[in-house]
Amino acid sequence: MKAHILPIRVYYEDTDAGGVVYYANYLRFMERARTEWLRSYGFEQDRLITDLGIVFAVRSANIDYLRPARFNDMLEVKTRVIDRGRASLAFHHSIEGAQPVGGTVYCRADVKVACVALDGMRPRALPPTIITEIFGDD
Amino acid sequence: MKAHILPIRVYYEDTDAGGVVYYANYLRFMERARTEWLRSYGFEQDRLITDLGIVFAVRSANIDYLRPARFNDMLEVKTRVIDRGRASLAFHHSIEGAQPVGGTVYCRADVKVACVALDGMRPRALPPTIITEIFGDD
Amino acid sequence: MKAHILPIRVYYEDTDAGGVVYYANYLRFMERARTEWLRSYGFEQDRLITDLGIVFAVRSANIDYLRPARFNDMLEVKTRVIDRGRASLAFHHSIEGAQPVGGTVYCRADVKVACVALDGMRPRALPPTIITEIFGDD
Amino acid sequence: MKAHILPIRVYYEDTDAGGVVYYANYLRFMERARTEWLRSYGFEQDRLITDLGIVFAVRSANIDYLRPARFNDMLEVKTRVIDRGRASLAFHHSIEGAQPVGGTVYCRADVKVACVALDGMRPRALPPTIITEIFGDD
Repeated sequence: MKAHILPIRVYYEDTDAGGVVYYANYLRFMERARTEWLRSYGFEQDRLITDLGIVFAVRSANIDYLRPARFNDMLEVKTRVIDRGRASLAFHHSIEGAQPVGGTVYCRADVKVACVALDGMRPRALPPTIITEIFGDD
Repeated sequence: MKAHILPIRVYYEDTDAGGVVYYANYLRFMERARTEWLRSYGFEQDRLITDLGIVFAVRSANIDYLRPARFNDMLEVKTRVIDRGRASLAFHHSIEGAQPVGGTVYCRADVKVACVALDGMRPRALPPTIITEIFGDD
Repeated sequence: MKAHILPIRVYYEDTDAGGVVYYANYLRFMERARTEWLRSYGFEQDRLITDLGIVFAVRSANIDYLRPARFNDMLEVKTRVIDRGRASLAFHHSIEGAQPVGGTVYCRADVKVACVALDGMRPRALPPTIITEIFGDD
Repeated sequence: MKAHILPIRVYYEDTDAGGVVYYANYLRFMERARTEWLRSYGFEQDRLITDLGIVFAVRSANIDYLRPARFNDMLEVKTRVIDRGRASLAFHHSIEGAQPVGGTVYCRADVKVACVALDGMRPRALPPTIITEIFGDD
C-alpha cells in the first residue's frame, strides 16, 4: 500500500523554548495525517460519528524521536496501514523533511487505533464500506 | 471582591521557540483560573453540565501582553469578577510573577463569559445557587 | 488592501469537551495566518531572525467569539493590516466558514504586533524591505 | 525507588470533542511530572541550561492508552526511573485516578530521555551532581 503524504508547516505554536517541535506535537501531526488519509477515501469522521456512531480511539503509540524539527520547517507526514484487525487498524507514520530538500527523518511511530462505539467506547467492527473502499475486499 | 489567586508553573509545553510563553497559552491559564475560582465556591463544572445543563462560553477577550513569561517561571493568575449580567459574567485577570519575587505583570485581560444551555447554546440565566453562593444575594 | 485568506481544517486537537474549538486556539489560527501573510510577500520569519535579528511579538489581542466552530469544519482566516507604526502593525482577522458554504463568521479579532530586537526585546523599526514590499513605499 | 506523584487536574484545554483527554496531552502531563521529579531533588531545568549547558531530550515514548480520562478528573502521574545510562534515563509513568477514588489507570508509558549539550544536541554524560543527589552514588 502506498504511503499517504500530508505536508505540514511548523508554526510557533508547535515549538517550545528548546527551539524545536515539542515532543507531544508530533502526535498531533500524525492524527491530522490519519484524518486526511481517511478523507482521501471519502470518509469524514464527523459523518462516521453521526451516521454510524463510531469513533477511532488510539490504543497505543510507539514513537522514536530521531532529530528535532524546527520553527518554519516544512514537513511531510507519511502514513501507511501496517495491520488490520476486525475492529482495529495499525499505522506506521514517518515525519520527514519535505521535498525537494527532503531526506531528513525527524520521527517515526507505530500507532494502533481501535474502532469503538460512541456510546460506551466498546470495540465495533470496522464498517464494511471502509474495508471495501480502502482495502478492496470484504 | 478579593482576587482569587491560582499559582501556575510554566512548563516546556507552554513556551515557543522565541523562548517565552506562547501568546495563546495565557488564555489557557486564565480559564484554569476561572475554573478554580468557581470550584472555590463549591461549583464543579462537570456537575453544572449534568445537573443544570449549562456551560460557560467565552464571548470576548481583550488581552494586553506586557512582558513575556519564560520557561520554569512561577506565575500567579489573579481573577476578579468585574461585572455581572443576568446570563453573563465579566472577569479581570492579571498574570503576575509569583511571590516572594513577584511584582512583574506579564499579562492583563478582560474576559466576558456567557452562561448558555448545553443544547442550543442559547443564553440561560445564572443559576440562583451560584448567585447566592458567590455574590451573597438573589 | 485585499484580505489574505488561509484555509484551516479543524482537527480533534483544536476542539474541547464542549464539542467546539477551544477558545485559545483561534489565536493559533490567527498566528498561522499572519505567518502565511508575511510569507506571501516573500518573508520567512526564521530568516528575519537570523538575518535581521528581529521577531514579531503580540502586544494586544481583542477577540469576539460569535459562534463556535466544530470538529472537521473547514475555516478561512481572513487577515488585513489595519494600521502601521514605525515598529508595529495592527491586524484585523476574521475566521469564517470556508466557501462555498461560507457566510458564517465564527470569530473576529484585532491584534497588535510589535517588531522587536531578538536580544532584549526592544522595539525595532520595521525593516525597509518589508515596508517596500508590502506597502509599496518607504 | 519510590514513585514520584504529581497531581494534575484535567481542564477544558486538555480535552477534545470526543469528551476525553486528547491523546497527545498525556505526554504533556508526563513531562510536567519529570520536571517536578527533578525539582524534588533540587534541580531546576533553567539552571541546568544556564549553568551546565544541558537539556533533556526525549528519544522514545511507548504509550498504552487504557481508558480515557475526562474533563474535571483529578489525576496522579506516577513516575519512576527504570534505567540509567551514561547520558540517558528511562522513566515509567502511570497516569491514574487520584486518591481517594483512585484505582483507575488511564495510561502507561515508558519514556527514554537523553542528556544533551544545548549547542549541537550531542549526548553529554549526566552531571555528577544529579547522579549523586538522585541515585546516591557516583
